[in-house]
Amino acid sequence: MSEIIDSTPKIEGYRMPAEFEPHKQTWMLWPYRSDLWRNGGKPVQRTFIKLAETISQFEPVTVGVSQNQYLAARSKLPNNIRVVEMSYNDIWVRDSGPTFVVNDRGNVRGIDWGFNAWGGLNGGLYWPWDLDNLVPQKILEIENIDRYKPENFILEGGSIHVDGQGTLLTTEECLLHPNRNPHLNKTQVEELLKEYVNVEKIIWLKKGNYEDCTYGHVDILSAFIRPGVVVLHWTDDKSDPQYEISADAYERLTNATDAKGRKLEVHKIHGPTVSYVTREEAEGIDVLEGSLPLTEGMRLDQSYINFYMANGCAIVPTFNDPQDKEALEKLQKLMPERKVIGINGREVVIPGGIFHCITQQQPLGIRQNLI
Amino acid sequence: MSEIIDSTPKIEGYRMPAEFEPHKQTWMLWPYRSDLWRNGGKPVQRTFIKLAETISQFEPVTVGVSQNQYLAARSKLPNNIRVVEMSYNDIWVRDSGPTFVVNDRGNVRGIDWGFNAWGGLNGGLYWPWDLDNLVPQKILEIENIDRYKPENFILEGGSIHVDGQGTLLTTEECLLHPNRNPHLNKTQVEELLKEYVNVEKIIWLKKGNYEDCTYGHVDILSAFIRPGVVVLHWTDDKSDPQYEISADAYERLTNATDAKGRKLEVHKIHGPTVSYVTREEAEGIDVLEGSLPLTEGMRLDQSYINFYMANGCAIVPTFNDPQDKEALEKLQKLMPERKVIGINGREVVIPGGIFHCITQQQPLGIRQNLI
Repeated sequence: MSEIIDSTPKIEGYRMPAEFEPHKQTWMLWPYRSDLWRNGGKPVQRTFIKLAETISQFEPVTVGVSQNQYLAARSKLPNNIRVVEMSYNDIWVRDSGPTFVVNDRGNVRGIDWGFNAWGGLNGGLYWPWDLDNLVPQKILEIENIDRYKPENFILEGGSIHVDGQGTLLTTEECLLHPNRNPHLNKTQVEELLKEYVNVEKIIWLKKGNYEDCTYGHVDILSAFIRPGVVVLHWTDDKSDPQYEISADAYERLTNATDAKGRKLEVHKIHGPTVSYVTREEAEGIDVLEGSLPLTEGMRLDQSYINFYMANGCAIVPTFNDPQDKEALEKLQKLMPERKVIGINGREVVIPGGIFHCITQQQPLGIRQNLI
Repeated sequence: MSEIIDSTPKIEGYRMPAEFEPHKQTWMLWPYRSDLWRNGGKPVQRTFIKLAETISQFEPVTVGVSQNQYLAARSKLPNNIRVVEMSYNDIWVRDSGPTFVVNDRGNVRGIDWGFNAWGGLNGGLYWPWDLDNLVPQKILEIENIDRYKPENFILEGGSIHVDGQGTLLTTEECLLHPNRNPHLNKTQVEELLKEYVNVEKIIWLKKGNYEDCTYGHVDILSAFIRPGVVVLHWTDDKSDPQYEISADAYERLTNATDAKGRKLEVHKIHGPTVSYVTREEAEGIDVLEGSLPLTEGMRLDQSYINFYMANGCAIVPTFNDPQDKEALEKLQKLMPERKVIGINGREVVIPGGIFHCITQQQPLGIRQNLI
């Protein structure tokens, strides 16, 4: 059961913990759509398995898989990974899944946001998205976790980051985009975030990465690695439209204070060489009515910032790029408390997200702790 | 995760508890197939909801539902019932589902029997049954319970009853039927039951009910209500072919001793008036290739014995029959420790089972107890 609670997390003393707080497990959804994943999903499945296996060395992993791929996924994934049947439109559980909140007693609840495939009929990436919209309920019901369900509020988990101490990081481009919540102004969006995520301070960046298909998700541009410390996707190439975006974000971040009144420590992480969808990649993807075609020459949203922090590790996408080494070393230096691991993210990034986008942490609550 | 354990319950000290031992929850699967349930499943869904609601007043209930009926089932079932997405061929989770076993420390595991739709290609009720065969794994994986998986052994949960103290009740008709395990003789079947269910004594009845479509399941003919005490489906009508079956069972039961050396106390429960599938009922059922047609005039396998015991209650099928009252009163007198509740079972019995057949208890283990 997952009862809908007619209240808000703030009223009831729940808050969204930071990703670097302890997890009970990680949720993922198995890729297979031939119009989003090249060659019937087989290449990306290899990356997915590697990612899931790696996370499962640090914390439990549950993978949702649709009926038609159940046997394939179950046989390919190692036995220590839990596989549950679930239908979904695609695998971006960071965005379609629930946001978990906890209270000081260690109880856990979920937020079942509205989801419209990053823009609905006004620029969304595919249609329909009905099954994605049910993912939070299905995950929470499996876990017997009750949920909050804000009305008329579209939000993807990848469009916000929190420090767990009252600060939220997001972008104006995404949260104020007319294809999400055109009925809400900035003040109203802030009020809803404060009410549901239960934060006191919102740091607004202007835009997400250049040509980011989500219209500006923060989680591929900037991230908290601990309270008071953020990393930022960076380029020194002033001819790249990304430069202006990263520079503006740098300025906003260095001038910001968090909910505790701290100035932020900002670390630039230089991105890899700009890369594009190849002809071979594009030819392996079905072009179907109902989803945005992925074509040769599209710019890939490559960034090391879209890493995922599980208990004791951070898994960072790499791109077989000379910049990989520096990024991994710098992130490891910045997070000495966790093992930084690189996994090639090329197959995931083609439709537009990387490892953070396809994972969702479920925080450790007291009830789970006892099991 | 649900790891396959390369051993047997007997070797590892696990046993199947009796149905009257404490449950963590009840599992059920939502009916909808138009070739098995009349009028698109709508009448039986009303009975199903009543049954699930009633059980949920005594213990938690989880309902598995296939993707295409998820929203319908979720909206029709009350919120205190957990709904999880799952595919299956039909709803007989007593037979397709796992048999749970426990050890003395309260750990819980499952047995993932083979399932062939009550006879496979030699008289089975429908084809295919591939999804039913995955139900144990899917249930156990949701619950994070490991499992035993006997090779080459077809067994349905409804073909056995146990007293939780070393005794198992079954029928020769079913367990020795050539459409189940033709490669095994009676001694070999006994050995497997002793190894997996972990019993010492097997009481063999000869046949199941007359024209029972499962080829002789015991759970609609006779049941333990506590160690040493069984109830038996009965008729006084010697012209009814059922008479000989019940009389033979009575003789075997009264002459049997259980694993503890006790003589059994046997109580006859007179069945309702014999009844048949009506034209109206048959006309509401699609006749499709791949499943046994349900036609006007088929004898219904009506019996009060197919009740289900949840924590503190026994839910007994009734048939709008003059005999209902006596059966309920007698069962209540025999089980003063639990509330006996009648629910009309007509809509469930048409394809051939009743409440015991569509429920599966998950015993309470220590790990669950802590939550």
